[in-house]
Amino acid sequence: MADVVIPDVKTLATQISEGSIRALGRGLTWVESGGPRAEALSARMFPNTGRAQVVGLTGAPGSGKSTLARALALVARARGRTVGIVAVDPSSPFSGGAILGDRIRMNDLALDPGVFIRSMATRGALGGLSRAAADAVDLMDAAGRNLVLVETVGVGQDEVDVMRLAHTVLVVSVPGLGDDVQALKAGVLEIADVHVVNKADREGADRTVAELRAMLTLLPTPEAAWVPPVLAASAARDEGIEAIADALDGHMAFLKTSGELERRRRRIVTARVLKIAQDLVAETVLEPFDATGTEGATLLDRVTRRELTPHACARALLARTANRIDLAGEGRDRH
Amino acid sequence: MADVVIPDVKTLATQISEGSIRALGRGLTWVESGGPRAEALSARMFPNTGRAQVVGLTGAPGSGKSTLARALALVARARGRTVGIVAVDPSSPFSGGAILGDRIRMNDLALDPGVFIRSMATRGALGGLSRAAADAVDLMDAAGRNLVLVETVGVGQDEVDVMRLAHTVLVVSVPGLGDDVQALKAGVLEIADVHVVNKADREGADRTVAELRAMLTLLPTPEAAWVPPVLAASAARDEGIEAIADALDGHMAFLKTSGELERRRRRIVTARVLKIAQDLVAETVLEPFDATGTEGATLLDRVTRRELTPHACARALLARTANRIDLAGEGRDRH
Repeated sequence: MADVVIPDVKTLATQISEGSIRALGRGLTWVESGGPRAEALSARMFPNTGRAQVVGLTGAPGSGKSTLARALALVARARGRTVGIVAVDPSSPFSGGAILGDRIRMNDLALDPGVFIRSMATRGALGGLSRAAADAVDLMDAAGRNLVLVETVGVGQDEVDVMRLAHTVLVVSVPGLGDDVQALKAGVLEIADVHVVNKADREGADRTVAELRAMLTLLPTPEAAWVPPVLAASAARDEGIEAIADALDGHMAFLKTSGELERRRRRIVTARVLKIAQDLVAETVLEPFDATGTEGATLLDRVTRRELTPHACARALLARTANRIDLAGEGRDRH
Repeated sequence: MADVVIPDVKTLATQISEGSIRALGRGLTWVESGGPRAEALSARMFPNTGRAQVVGLTGAPGSGKSTLARALALVARARGRTVGIVAVDPSSPFSGGAILGDRIRMNDLALDPGVFIRSMATRGALGGLSRAAADAVDLMDAAGRNLVLVETVGVGQDEVDVMRLAHTVLVVSVPGLGDDVQALKAGVLEIADVHVVNKADREGADRTVAELRAMLTLLPTPEAAWVPPVLAASAARDEGIEAIADALDGHMAFLKTSGELERRRRRIVTARVLKIAQDLVAETVLEPFDATGTEGATLLDRVTRRELTPHACARALLARTANRIDLAGEGRDRH
């Protein structure tokens, strides 16, 4: 905080809105870290959001999500749109790979200021991943990016939560991945708006397309009349990418004309607010436990001694938490 | 509730404590569903918990976790212990497999009343998985099971959360699984107390063992002097299972003699209470949104119109929530 080269929230917000790449990068670092500064920045940017198309891109490890994101970004650029990519996949090449992963870089994109890539590989014990991803999407949006791609690996509740931030969810499958890996995707298959069978040059691609189409007939029929298309592609060979870009545009057009867009925006807001509330509880409930002898620690001691149930302890802590949450925190600039 | 054959909470709790298999099965169904009845039952059982050794068992899809759980259960039985298995893996054969998975059954275990298997494949949008898993473990514990194995697939925050319930965390790896699948396990590798390289008859097993040992030297040294052993095994051939059972016993002995057990119990309680608090927030914050025109819905509308930030909305809703959470819920029998 004492570092004088750090801009204040207001200055940074202005710079981001004016399209400064450097400011956007710094802002993303802030929101990734969280805390009051991040919240103040997000509050300033929030009124300028809502213009970008947010596309969630998910699939099993090894399905080529990052390659597809790159190919879609190039098509969007050719169509005159600017792009932001938020990769929250710990195994993503965008994030330099995870501890056991490889470290491919996307150098051709790095040279185009019209494509801004940010990886968020951190995965705090207290959650906060989808909160940070949502704030990152907002920043890209407020910075004027027309298309924001959010990439996550398609397993686990965290990832489904991140996908709930998107207007359009694209789920990537590949031929020949093991059934038990595919099964993990059950949760995200149900929220797919567009299906892509990537690596379609591989044997078994037709079968995977047919299986997905068959599976779609088993899912509960949504109220609105959008049937998720199943598209074959080879992102590494740049084949089938234009058709996917068309499907993404088509889905957004459907959302607008059907009135579904407003419902989806409401759902996104609800999911996002709930996550923030849960993060606040996580931060605040655990806060006093660092010091010894506090009331919270005493309550936990009683659970450890089995004098108090975990449920009763949680209720008691929540009551105390509500008083300590800073209820005046709305949109304030703390700098 | 009107169904007269449903026992009341007190009767069911007594039957479970007396070792009734049928009562245990019913109790597990209750806690899986959640709600006041589940909470009342958990509250009754809670004072009788704390005797079982709880072992978390996790690994990538296809690593043979369920087969290993079965083999460990058989060894524990041969050593005179009773076993409970809680499988929270949607791709687990115990749960009958997921929508695209296979449906292997563990018939040889089903005939032994000394091994009770329960799958919890549900994955609600509001979370609750680790809350339900913790309550299920408690029920198994209170029912007198000496060893409770909790099986989850080793990816995602949910699964790491479930592992935080265990006294001992066993992470299963296999030779030759793709790097990007292995990378997903980074989060659970760090919380492993015992490493098992399963399918050790496969090519590359020695290399996987060596890689894991090398990786362990890179992890931050824990305060306590437990170095996680890396054990090769073939669960399907019943090879190496006795050594794993010994390692699990050895870890529990270490926890007791080092005083680490109390610290770990405290950590388990803290994680569990936090999760319950977050679930309560999820339930209560969303509650009024079903009806139109409520205050909560109005707040969300304001976020949708970008007049209020998601963070400010979350704070406002939390303040309202605290008043509505039933703070008198401690250990009460509602029947």
